[in-house]
Amino acid sequence: MAGPFSFRLTATDGAARSGEMTTAHGIVHTPAFMPVGTQAAIKGVHHADVQASGAEILLGNTYHLMLRPSAERVAALGGLHEFMRWPYPILTDSGGFQVMSLAPLRKVTEQGVVFRSHLDGALVELTPERAIEVQILLGSDIAMQLDECVRLPAEGSEIERAMKLSLRWAERCKRAFEAAPPDRALFGIVQGGDDPKLRAQSARELTDIGFPGYAIGGLAVGETQEVMLGVVDETAAALPKERPRYLMGVGTPADILEAVGRGIDMFDCVLPTRNGRHGLAFTRFGPINIKNAHHADDKRPLDAESRCPAACDFSRAYLHHLFRSGEALGGTLLSIINLFYYQDLLVGARAAIGAGRFADYIGETKEQWTARRDLRASET
Amino acid sequence: MAGPFSFRLTATDGAARSGEMTTAHGIVHTPAFMPVGTQAAIKGVHHADVQASGAEILLGNTYHLMLRPSAERVAALGGLHEFMRWPYPILTDSGGFQVMSLAPLRKVTEQGVVFRSHLDGALVELTPERAIEVQILLGSDIAMQLDECVRLPAEGSEIERAMKLSLRWAERCKRAFEAAPPDRALFGIVQGGDDPKLRAQSARELTDIGFPGYAIGGLAVGETQEVMLGVVDETAAALPKERPRYLMGVGTPADILEAVGRGIDMFDCVLPTRNGRHGLAFTRFGPINIKNAHHADDKRPLDAESRCPAACDFSRAYLHHLFRSGEALGGTLLSIINLFYYQDLLVGARAAIGAGRFADYIGETKEQWTARRDLRASET
Repeated sequence: MAGPFSFRLTATDGAARSGEMTTAHGIVHTPAFMPVGTQAAIKGVHHADVQASGAEILLGNTYHLMLRPSAERVAALGGLHEFMRWPYPILTDSGGFQVMSLAPLRKVTEQGVVFRSHLDGALVELTPERAIEVQILLGSDIAMQLDECVRLPAEGSEIERAMKLSLRWAERCKRAFEAAPPDRALFGIVQGGDDPKLRAQSARELTDIGFPGYAIGGLAVGETQEVMLGVVDETAAALPKERPRYLMGVGTPADILEAVGRGIDMFDCVLPTRNGRHGLAFTRFGPINIKNAHHADDKRPLDAESRCPAACDFSRAYLHHLFRSGEALGGTLLSIINLFYYQDLLVGARAAIGAGRFADYIGETKEQWTARRDLRASET
Repeated sequence: MAGPFSFRLTATDGAARSGEMTTAHGIVHTPAFMPVGTQAAIKGVHHADVQASGAEILLGNTYHLMLRPSAERVAALGGLHEFMRWPYPILTDSGGFQVMSLAPLRKVTEQGVVFRSHLDGALVELTPERAIEVQILLGSDIAMQLDECVRLPAEGSEIERAMKLSLRWAERCKRAFEAAPPDRALFGIVQGGDDPKLRAQSARELTDIGFPGYAIGGLAVGETQEVMLGVVDETAAALPKERPRYLMGVGTPADILEAVGRGIDMFDCVLPTRNGRHGLAFTRFGPINIKNAHHADDKRPLDAESRCPAACDFSRAYLHHLFRSGEALGGTLLSIINLFYYQDLLVGARAAIGAGRFADYIGETKEQWTARRDLRASET
């Protein structure tokens, strides 16, 4: 099942694709959703439940892990797979995005970025070479180049500067990655904000450098869904067909379906667990806020036909009670329910692509969300 | 497996006993430890893990459940077993202990206790009859009489007054419990503080009233272990041999072993989960504070030979990292590890009693705690 990194398409349906990505730690079926294990743990959820949800690959955050417990310590403990006891594929980001969003006093230069740790204020330098070194130490199956991500809206000149810097960093990352074991892969990241020309230039020049996979970064950072999907549409089309395409940090179930329809193969997002902790369940019947008072006497499970034990076993009344009572188990159960839902959404997408009916799948899925069958059922 | 409430001894070894308690929801092997599901949930731990630990019976807190979501609501939702999806035996306390420790503005009279809800300040009355009504609504297999628990040290006259009031409440509870389905059991509670004569009187008069099981209440409320064990020793001996004996709210692994050696059959305590959330693991090698810095690079699991997956799979370094990083999964994993440890401690106790070597079992277990083999192993 495992082997050197490779990717092959198994079906296409319009721009949508399904495929198989082989890594040293196993095969990932695409389009794939990667739960986010920020600090070597999926927040509040046991690995066994993450695996049961069907997740074939996790994301780890380089920024967090390099600061605590440190990449060197993780390496000494056998690497991230061994450290967190997740023997399946892992992708790590480069740390760049978190530096931009979390660290105070950052300074970006040609060389890299210098920032203060949000933990102890220590001055830390993250260069393209160090970002790769850290990811090699962590031992992830897929590493990401260091890039500079600009929050939108932004001036065109600022977007262009960051995009071009990211291209130069891409080259340095690729050189640094020559030190990595041969079964690992490094992905480049397309930048260029909401400017189609800059995105096209970034995609073209990244492809010239040459990577086994390409990410679209710098989206889901403040722009509308329409702008995001427009960029995804054009950028995906500009990337090599035979390489996996990863849309970073996206998104809602609707975002994901629309992006799959535009040729995206991989996703990561904290929404399933973050919203789960806050009482929001993603279901086939649309999002359900379990904290709402009308669930207090509702014996029905969230989804009696779900593959997820927590979704088909516990009543809405019980889940509501857990949130009202401040029991952490409520957030854990909803996180698990959401992780299952995201996986099932993509299982359905892969099947629909294989059957050449992905457009119908989007339509049917969205109709079920908005039909609010759960409310009708409780009203009859 | 299930049936009307009954109890039979399967072996004795000195004062220690092993037995089988049959309830409508299954058999409980004694001596037994009951994890505490305060608000219809074991804090931070999924029911599946509680069951995997070997727990055969849970404790639910009447005080919490009557205030939220309310006994009437739980009953309308099918009872506590159905509500929380725990199809195995459940014992509920009477609510009296939490009224004394949590509720402001309480007033104890002959009739019962009036208090303000700690949730919304509402005035609530808990009488012996209401305590039984609530527990019948919850549907627990074993209900407890309402009693008044005095915090130690206390004046002898105060202890005596509360003990005698508890006896009168015991009679009222027994009468009220005649409304319960016939497969359920009501336990009386011995009070009397640290006064052997009052304890003896309480045990004698309770036995005259007649219950299918007896608890020793009002301990682990500020007295030393020596005082507690002295009371347990004399009180257990004064209770009918053929009925289960339950020591409420106790305790540490050492407390439990000593109490089993004095003829106790049932225990409940929040320590496994509370200490787990705070980073303290109970292990065969004694308690381990996983937050201590020296665990940061320790690849060894907490106990490679444990039956608990979390104890034998994850490294101490990883568990340490989870606590240092504020990941709730750390508290969950240590809670699970501790729940397994408590169950295994009692599995061992039952086997030792059956083999007539319980005194040796206590000695060997304590020796292993203090030998600190884990430290020796890391030093070699």
